[in-house]
Amino acid sequence: MDPIGFRTSTANAGVRDASDDLVCVASEVPCAVDAVFTRSRFAGPCVELSRANAADGSAQAVVVVSKNANVANGEAGREDAERVLRTAGAALGIAPTEILLAGTGVIGRRWPLDRILPFVERFDEARATDFGAAARGIMTTDNSPKLARARVGDASLVGIAKGVGMIEPNMATLLVFLFTDALLPPAELRRGFRAAVEGTFNSMSIDTDTSTSDTAVVMANGLVGEVDASAFAVALESVCRELMLAILRDGEGATKVIRVDVAGAADREQARVVGKLVVNSPLVKTALHGADPNWGRIAMAIGKAEDYEEITPERTRIGLGGRRVYPEALGDGDLERLAGEIAAADCVTIDIELGIGDAAATVWGCDLSEEYVRLNAEYTT
Amino acid sequence: MDPIGFRTSTANAGVRDASDDLVCVASEVPCAVDAVFTRSRFAGPCVELSRANAADGSAQAVVVVSKNANVANGEAGREDAERVLRTAGAALGIAPTEILLAGTGVIGRRWPLDRILPFVERFDEARATDFGAAARGIMTTDNSPKLARARVGDASLVGIAKGVGMIEPNMATLLVFLFTDALLPPAELRRGFRAAVEGTFNSMSIDTDTSTSDTAVVMANGLVGEVDASAFAVALESVCRELMLAILRDGEGATKVIRVDVAGAADREQARVVGKLVVNSPLVKTALHGADPNWGRIAMAIGKAEDYEEITPERTRIGLGGRRVYPEALGDGDLERLAGEIAAADCVTIDIELGIGDAAATVWGCDLSEEYVRLNAEYTT
Repeated sequence: MDPIGFRTSTANAGVRDASDDLVCVASEVPCAVDAVFTRSRFAGPCVELSRANAADGSAQAVVVVSKNANVANGEAGREDAERVLRTAGAALGIAPTEILLAGTGVIGRRWPLDRILPFVERFDEARATDFGAAARGIMTTDNSPKLARARVGDASLVGIAKGVGMIEPNMATLLVFLFTDALLPPAELRRGFRAAVEGTFNSMSIDTDTSTSDTAVVMANGLVGEVDASAFAVALESVCRELMLAILRDGEGATKVIRVDVAGAADREQARVVGKLVVNSPLVKTALHGADPNWGRIAMAIGKAEDYEEITPERTRIGLGGRRVYPEALGDGDLERLAGEIAAADCVTIDIELGIGDAAATVWGCDLSEEYVRLNAEYTT
Repeated sequence: MDPIGFRTSTANAGVRDASDDLVCVASEVPCAVDAVFTRSRFAGPCVELSRANAADGSAQAVVVVSKNANVANGEAGREDAERVLRTAGAALGIAPTEILLAGTGVIGRRWPLDRILPFVERFDEARATDFGAAARGIMTTDNSPKLARARVGDASLVGIAKGVGMIEPNMATLLVFLFTDALLPPAELRRGFRAAVEGTFNSMSIDTDTSTSDTAVVMANGLVGEVDASAFAVALESVCRELMLAILRDGEGATKVIRVDVAGAADREQARVVGKLVVNSPLVKTALHGADPNWGRIAMAIGKAEDYEEITPERTRIGLGGRRVYPEALGDGDLERLAGEIAAADCVTIDIELGIGDAAATVWGCDLSEEYVRLNAEYTT
């Protein structure tokens, strides 16, 4: 069920091709909002303006232009973004500072404002609520739209996301928009949102590259009234996790999701560092793509945690696909069976026990295929 | 010309196949030696033993087993390595602590000592000096042997190296062995060697993965007498650079070398961080593989330097293949010409000017191709 009080507007403004590339989601009333953004030093004006507009914890609409990120266009790009906000504000009867703006797509090309603005001027005509269309409208090279829902008491939560490559969010994320009609104290909204982002989008990587446009937003219009904060936090986490898995499954060229569970670490940061080293290793990613139970590459990747002297081969235990592979060596027959299991699996789990403390973390990624290279060598500026 | 006083021994001990896999280079007299090693937390017993044996600045021989790294084999692997050292020492009439040992190849498999030791026992029969055979003998998945030479006064310097993947050395390097008959004060040998390693092997990356077995050694037996220390430093740098370029050209699946020159940085560390982010970005690597002058991805990669607030789009200048591409935009005709130039180039240069200070650094890498994925998905444990 859709959260009440939100209107969506989706259009093809011809930014690149005939697919939808302009999306607006507006609430009837002001919303409590929280948002996190890319930490990139080349963040574009959409991120800069949205960061400023979300800072007071209040907003009423989001506007997304897809297929072109409007990044690295200098002062002209900034003015283009401000003009879209002003035009949207006038159309919706909302102050431009109450609107968040996101762009995604090619870097270094200006938006075709002559084609975009006529559609922005008609945002007020939206009478429908179609989050599925909105999820499709924010896609760039995504193969499938990403949408997830949850219920919390009488309230509804819906999330949409896009992303297939240039994905290793850090203290931020890709494009994710969550809408709810629940009423939540701002501090609870923020706490639940940050925790959900940390455990999902900030714990994943497709290709180690971080977008200039990463944006995650939650908007709560409160029209259904108060809900239990911890139940809402669980719902937020579940929607974020579902979207994260959809992004990983759609990872450029990906054929498998990789899950790395690290336990026995000195602290959570250490567990995350080790997990990221493993899930981002091109040699681990290609081995799993080839269904090769080459656990030596996992050991190699753990070994890259050069600054942690307490990590040693003697303390470390490694599991792959549910079987212990180090230090006890698998026999050839077991290795062959494991290879078959990896070949058949949609998601391969790597378990690492560091034997140091009791902190743990889980990070997510995907395999690396020839198709990733082909897609990204052929994607034209 | 070969440096005098070194004997080489190369054999096929059947570690994996019929290609040579056992190499010994021994000096007639003790050598001044310096060595750097991987910082991996999963470093194998060869690295541990060699680190200890090189610590006093003196050694007389190196032994290399290729096709199997003898890493992550626990106490048994350590005993195997010690047994090879003892056997080599007895054969050569050298204390085992004066011998450096290196392994390279698959991780997690024990050496076939029954096949290796009979050849080690015959190391003393070596009467030849054939560095070309030694360079071939240390290869694993290398397509070509890597050897470079220089002269310093009357002295000779020869270097051999191996490496095509799992290559992002850090304070260490892959397998590199340099031999000279020059006489050098240990401090000068060390200073020149560390500087050469820093500017070459420690400034390159093929795939961001760091080997457990990285080892670089220089041995000077002094038989030709003193040479000018700064001329020797230049010769060391030139041999290391030639070997580095040979490794990059032979990088797994690589079709192009990428050189990133970063200038205008606050300090050298900042320049190196930015250069590494660019040369390691899979989206930059695949774009250049596809001859796509997609400079937006270079901007994205620079933007990943999240901790450097002084890096801004306003200050940054980007050049690609000798043309300025940001902030001034190239016209479509120029972009097309640039694409043609990238397609034809063996080495593509990226110039980045940060506009902050006057520190600079150069880092090296290679493109990412479907072939890299194929090679590493199919390479069997």
